[in-house]
Amino acid sequence: MNKVEHIGIAVSSMENSIALFEKLLNTPCYKQEKVESEAVNTAFFQTGQTKIELLEALNEQSPVAKFLAKKGEGIHHIAFEVADIKAEMKRLQAEGFVLLNEAPKRGADNKWVCFLHPKNTNGVLVELCQDAG
Amino acid sequence: MNKVEHIGIAVSSMENSIALFEKLLNTPCYKQEKVESEAVNTAFFQTGQTKIELLEALNEQSPVAKFLAKKGEGIHHIAFEVADIKAEMKRLQAEGFVLLNEAPKRGADNKWVCFLHPKNTNGVLVELCQDAG
Repeated sequence: MNKVEHIGIAVSSMENSIALFEKLLNTPCYKQEKVESEAVNTAFFQTGQTKIELLEALNEQSPVAKFLAKKGEGIHHIAFEVADIKAEMKRLQAEGFVLLNEAPKRGADNKWVCFLHPKNTNGVLVELCQDAG
Repeated sequence: MNKVEHIGIAVSSMENSIALFEKLLNTPCYKQEKVESEAVNTAFFQTGQTKIELLEALNEQSPVAKFLAKKGEGIHHIAFEVADIKAEMKRLQAEGFVLLNEAPKRGADNKWVCFLHPKNTNGVLVELCQDAG
C-alpha cells in the first residue's frame, strides 16, 4: 500500500456538506463527479497526499443510501493506493481477505478499484485503487 | 490542515488486530504506546504520509470501550496535522464548530490534540494534532 489515497465520507446533502468541509478543511472542493455504476455523486478536497471524498446517494439502491439508512452520516471507507491492483488483490486473497469484486472495476477519479469485505478488516471498508492512466 | 496525520481504528483485541493489519498493509507495526489519559492502548503503522492507529480500550470507562459497545469495531476518528493548533482551534470555533476540549491536550505519539464534536462534522470525529516538539 503506497499511501491513503482518499477517505470516503457518506453525506445526506452534498450541497450542505461541501460548504461544511470547505470550512473544516479550509480548502475549496476542487472537483465533483457522478459515478453512475455506484449511484453516487462525489466531491473532492485535497489535504496533503490524501483526498477527502464526499459521497451522496443518487437513488435508494445506492450502497451509500443503504449505509446512511443503517449508520447515518460518517466515514464510509478508506482507500489505499497500490502500484499493481491485480497483484495486491491476489496477495490479499491468499492472506484470507475477501474481495467484494473479483476483477478491478472503474471507480471515481479515473481509478481501478477493488473493495475488501469489512468482516475480515475490523469492520473497516477498505478500497484498493490504482490510477487507470 | 497540512495532511491526514493518522486514522484511528477501534479494535477489540490489539494482538489479533496487529496481526491483521500487518497482513493487510504489508508493513510491520512499528510502535505501541499506552495513553493513560484516554485509557487506550495504541499501535501504529505507516502508509505514505499517514499512520494507521489501532485503539484498544484499557478499561470500560475508555471512550473506545463506549464506541465498541455502541458501534463495534471500525474507524473511530480522522486526525489532521495542523501547524498551529491554537490558531486552528480558534478559526474552527469562529466557523461554528464545537471543540471537545477547550485547550490542547497531550495525545499519543508526542502530540498536542483537540477533538471536534461530530454533530457538526457530518458524524466524523475529527482530531487536530500538532507535534509537541
